[in-house]
Amino acid sequence: MARSFSTTVRLAASDKSRFVPTSGVYPKGFRVGGYYSGVKKRPELLDLAAIVSDTPAAASAVFTTNVFKAAPVQISKKVLDETHGEGINAIIINSGCANAVTGEGGLEDATTMVQLVDKTLNKTAPSGVLANTLVMSTGVIGQRLKMDKIEAGIPELLTKHLGSDHESWIRGAKAICTTDTFPKLVSKEFSIGSNTYRIAGLAKGAGMIHPNMATLLGFFVTDAAVEPAALKSILKYAADRSFNAISVDGDTSTNDTIAALANGAAGGPIIAEGSEGYEILRDAITSFAISLAQLVVRDGEGATKFITIKIEDAKTFEEAKKVASTIATSPLVKTAMFGKDANWGRILCATGYAGVEVDPTKTNVSFVPNDGSAELKLLVNGEPENVDEARASQLLDEEDVNIRVSLGTGGGHSTEFWTCDFSHEYVTINGDYRT
Amino acid sequence: MARSFSTTVRLAASDKSRFVPTSGVYPKGFRVGGYYSGVKKRPELLDLAAIVSDTPAAASAVFTTNVFKAAPVQISKKVLDETHGEGINAIIINSGCANAVTGEGGLEDATTMVQLVDKTLNKTAPSGVLANTLVMSTGVIGQRLKMDKIEAGIPELLTKHLGSDHESWIRGAKAICTTDTFPKLVSKEFSIGSNTYRIAGLAKGAGMIHPNMATLLGFFVTDAAVEPAALKSILKYAADRSFNAISVDGDTSTNDTIAALANGAAGGPIIAEGSEGYEILRDAITSFAISLAQLVVRDGEGATKFITIKIEDAKTFEEAKKVASTIATSPLVKTAMFGKDANWGRILCATGYAGVEVDPTKTNVSFVPNDGSAELKLLVNGEPENVDEARASQLLDEEDVNIRVSLGTGGGHSTEFWTCDFSHEYVTINGDYRT
Repeated sequence: MARSFSTTVRLAASDKSRFVPTSGVYPKGFRVGGYYSGVKKRPELLDLAAIVSDTPAAASAVFTTNVFKAAPVQISKKVLDETHGEGINAIIINSGCANAVTGEGGLEDATTMVQLVDKTLNKTAPSGVLANTLVMSTGVIGQRLKMDKIEAGIPELLTKHLGSDHESWIRGAKAICTTDTFPKLVSKEFSIGSNTYRIAGLAKGAGMIHPNMATLLGFFVTDAAVEPAALKSILKYAADRSFNAISVDGDTSTNDTIAALANGAAGGPIIAEGSEGYEILRDAITSFAISLAQLVVRDGEGATKFITIKIEDAKTFEEAKKVASTIATSPLVKTAMFGKDANWGRILCATGYAGVEVDPTKTNVSFVPNDGSAELKLLVNGEPENVDEARASQLLDEEDVNIRVSLGTGGGHSTEFWTCDFSHEYVTINGDYRT
Repeated sequence: MARSFSTTVRLAASDKSRFVPTSGVYPKGFRVGGYYSGVKKRPELLDLAAIVSDTPAAASAVFTTNVFKAAPVQISKKVLDETHGEGINAIIINSGCANAVTGEGGLEDATTMVQLVDKTLNKTAPSGVLANTLVMSTGVIGQRLKMDKIEAGIPELLTKHLGSDHESWIRGAKAICTTDTFPKLVSKEFSIGSNTYRIAGLAKGAGMIHPNMATLLGFFVTDAAVEPAALKSILKYAADRSFNAISVDGDTSTNDTIAALANGAAGGPIIAEGSEGYEILRDAITSFAISLAQLVVRDGEGATKFITIKIEDAKTFEEAKKVASTIATSPLVKTAMFGKDANWGRILCATGYAGVEVDPTKTNVSFVPNDGSAELKLLVNGEPENVDEARASQLLDEEDVNIRVSLGTGGGHSTEFWTCDFSHEYVTINGDYRT
């Protein structure tokens, strides 16, 4: 079958290049870059990335909830615990090997990586602290890292291939890609009072594919000065509304990690929980994280649609999230979107088995047009509408499809969730890769 | 794309005819049949089925947990509540229209169906009882039943088209099909002491497809004499290990229903909870229900594989079920099976995010051959094996694939679960049907 899909692949890839920025506004005091170390087979593919802060930065991260946590996840957790998220120098990331399910040896390899970064940067971790660097890996599960390549590559990358220009950021974004069809880079500027700050970040994703080129990885850095506890609470808040509100295929990998660094290079007061700028920073980081996370969905394996699911009037935020993710992971909803089928019954059905409070007699389902015109009502207070099939097809013909479901619980909580469709291409990528 | 898949469809369908029995052993005192009433568009497709017991039977049923319960589900629940599962005459089933999300009118239609069956059989329900008949529907969601067709069809079916021979059972099985590629009929004989009994049943399924030809429907009848409370507890036990242990696409429909009737026509003592024959009957019904449920997976939309997932050493039976169903619904596992890819990392990953207790250092994963030869170990106590790829491909080349996962919790609970793979055909059926 593969041949009959190759066209689709190329089209998808080229088409998506519009999501790659040609310039950006980058935070002060950070250097980033990508390098080919030899972990991946093809030299034209970068496989080692790093972000370095010129001054010690506050750091936080959210990690996969998978029971089988990869070695880099365990080591990065350890570093954050021991440093309390203070004085972090860098993040080192390799692609091509996930260093997951690799036992004790894998933990030693991840430790070597963070300590080699510290050493190359002439930093010494305080006693009782493993290192001042975080580490992420993505790629094959169950295989050891080629440490000779990594140990040669890290000094090369850190001493010769870091920069603060747009090209360096793009190279960093490329170096963490696996099956991604485009590098994912976002940068934004925001102000708190008279102070202007910048935030920039990279992500990779696209679902998991053989052999478990798994994983959602991402990090962002800002030149605002943020107190570690504040950065932690903001990252949690932002991740719940961005990276934890997207789904390509519902699988949670062994390596998923999102990290944040704040180095204060832009000056201004240190932002703490409850301090004046806290909520502005939280909202700026959240909207930034949503932009970055959406790129992962745009690049979903075989995706032909970008689907926004808005859940309204749920009992709680968590229940809204649960319904949204149930709809977003329903193969029937996802294949219907691929087939441009106004199959609201499937959306309703998924809502019904999400396991949260719903009032069937007050449930509403509709498609929301991108052009701001009136929504197409599908179900009103539990009763099906006579759907204008022509208008429905028109809306489902667009790349961006918006589904709104109101649960009628009176709770008033809402959330947004982003996913893509299930296409032949998804099956091809995940099943046929060998043929 | 449709054309390139048509071959697959035909092959799959014809190939699966081997699952249709050419004879059977049928319970005494039941008449069954199928008829074309006109609900479906194509006359060559039967759309109305009934099973009638010559004497009042004990009855029980398990229903969908979906919040949006279809009218026939609500009416059958009411009948069982009001009759306490005693004195049931018949089950009436239509295909082609699910009578779901149809509001008050839909409830009236389902009521008309059960009361018309009673009337045609000259049975009068006791006061305070809606009817002595159960009803099931499967097909389009959000459309009203063509009641003129149904009301003309029910007397025709009940008076002229019921029988107790194999052909009548096959016609009944065909009449409840929607997208099924073959009718699903199983019959078995079993003994308790010196008494011999028969059990036979029908099922339909194959996942949900446009426009929500939803639903797992099934029923089985036995000529054993069973006390209603005992039948209820046995059905729950059997369903947990059969119809609730299969997955095609993880979606739970608005109409899912499994019903059981026991009329005692074979004589013998009335079997009650705690009575001598209870466990023998429970085990006989459970193994019967597993055979019937497995046919639904065999006919999974686009299925090319029949996958048995055995979970061992879980903390509880429920946790074993949860891991099994998480693996069974992972699109990555299912596409890997389609691609004949020994992608144990995906199985491990799904195990890791199932949300149950797992000991990563004591987890074992393996493929179990069908020929009884030694299993192919993939992961041993959390450490990956050097997998013999040739043998792996050999095992994955077979239609039946067996996955064994031991969670190492020391709990010792195990379960079996059955699913199929995700193929291009699945996407075609569920997405491309319009093209």
